[in-house]
Amino acid sequence: MTTLFDFPAWIQVQLAEVEQALQSWVPGSAPAGLGEAMRYAVLDGGKRLRPLLVLAAAEAVNGHREAALRGACGVELIHAYSLVHDDMPCMDNDVLRRGKPTVHVKFGEALALLAGDSLQALAFELIAPDPRDSGIAGDVQARLCRILARAAGHGGMAGGQAIDLASVGERLSEAQLRQMHRLKTGALLQASVAMGAACGGAGDDATTALDRYGAALGLAFQVVVDILDVTSDSATLGKTAGKDAAHDKPTYVSLLGLDPSRAYAQSLLDEALGALAVSGLANTRALEALARMVVERNN
Amino acid sequence: MTTLFDFPAWIQVQLAEVEQALQSWVPGSAPAGLGEAMRYAVLDGGKRLRPLLVLAAAEAVNGHREAALRGACGVELIHAYSLVHDDMPCMDNDVLRRGKPTVHVKFGEALALLAGDSLQALAFELIAPDPRDSGIAGDVQARLCRILARAAGHGGMAGGQAIDLASVGERLSEAQLRQMHRLKTGALLQASVAMGAACGGAGDDATTALDRYGAALGLAFQVVVDILDVTSDSATLGKTAGKDAAHDKPTYVSLLGLDPSRAYAQSLLDEALGALAVSGLANTRALEALARMVVERNN
Repeated sequence: MTTLFDFPAWIQVQLAEVEQALQSWVPGSAPAGLGEAMRYAVLDGGKRLRPLLVLAAAEAVNGHREAALRGACGVELIHAYSLVHDDMPCMDNDVLRRGKPTVHVKFGEALALLAGDSLQALAFELIAPDPRDSGIAGDVQARLCRILARAAGHGGMAGGQAIDLASVGERLSEAQLRQMHRLKTGALLQASVAMGAACGGAGDDATTALDRYGAALGLAFQVVVDILDVTSDSATLGKTAGKDAAHDKPTYVSLLGLDPSRAYAQSLLDEALGALAVSGLANTRALEALARMVVERNN
Repeated sequence: MTTLFDFPAWIQVQLAEVEQALQSWVPGSAPAGLGEAMRYAVLDGGKRLRPLLVLAAAEAVNGHREAALRGACGVELIHAYSLVHDDMPCMDNDVLRRGKPTVHVKFGEALALLAGDSLQALAFELIAPDPRDSGIAGDVQARLCRILARAAGHGGMAGGQAIDLASVGERLSEAQLRQMHRLKTGALLQASVAMGAACGGAGDDATTALDRYGAALGLAFQVVVDILDVTSDSATLGKTAGKDAAHDKPTYVSLLGLDPSRAYAQSLLDEALGALAVSGLANTRALEALARMVVERNN
């Protein structure tokens, strides 16, 4: 008989730790308003999906808990900085995020630029604490740095954003669309899983399985975003619905249609759960539940 | 009898390696023009002072050469990204750098923002290669990450830029001015020395001495910049002379006067050389020569 897994309780415990860690690690004391802008950008009630993936993957491999918590906050800071820069006038020019003025509206463009830059640097600072204080081995820190840097940069998130910029008004093939999202949102989600795995001693088979899980989940996440953009109203979504279509941005729904997009999301969920099933890891219940949550959410 | 140290030959050897490494590590293949913008920002004939400091400090401690070369390129990428973002319209709004259009003028603001972001990520990617390929221990990689991230972020360069933003038209005290420059330019120069030291096994005394050297050199660098801003013409300087005064930015010269600024730079050089003398390290000739070069340069 398997024990019942209480996913909401699991999430509550993880989120409490993540929020507390972000509260203490994102400095209010940085000079000249910079710390205030950084905290405003991060401590805003995001869903913390990426941190949850890091912590769930670390649990699956019995990973070092503080390393995982630092990785979880690090990847969230990369995500937060990307939103700050994405919202700026030269990019998407968004004035509201989660119902609040965006960072550049509240603090000015120059400070928003610096806050984003500082959040990226802080992500790498968090994952490389003095080993004498943290007890996190240099090898683990170096792995976290390698995975996060690759996923954040030109071969990951930032590269995907560049494709996105160039693609507005273009007719992308499904392969091109998948490549854009694989980089823009998928890379950081997949990296979250890999960072959690890097906190423990997973073997090659388990590592490969977790990578497959992360890749499928990352893609599924974006397909669901595209579905919700056309099926939810703005109130449910918490942001402007129909925005991508209005901006003439290519989406899975515009390319495949709505029902095929739903079927595609479901097949990616199956792929993710199948990878966990063959991973040889005993404790993958949180990872399973997170994958279902991503695909079955309605906001 | 000490061997004669051929500093120009030393510089030539180091620069050839650094330029070759940057050529091969800054990707031209990143998507949608991003790689082109990154290469334009980095491969532009900068003086490479920070890489030279990393390599000289690594030599002084018999450090791992590839680790030092990766650290050297990493710190240069942080410097390069800061210039790209600094030149943007919401910051200094500069249209020319070293006689060429700035990145946002040539590639647009959105791609300049992403290129800067990607260069920062690449800096951390370079210093954390797979140990199986590079032979660089995880401990060394983690130290490089820690030093570079702290120097780049809110407690270093980006924090100094925030103070700089807030200080335009303000009357700063000497202590405030020194704090601004200690962060804005000093932190990364000092980190360069510390990164070189981290590639070897320097003891506590040597590490402390190299830190003192780096701090004095970092401050001296900025004092000399301020002196040259008023004493050189634009042709010699390769950029617009008198710009800080015109922008009503506080400088050492405006605060202390010209001759006291020169005396201050000289005393900082003495401090840097004195630190090397008590470091217990045998091979500090390149570090000595670099300190003299920084203080005695005229462009």
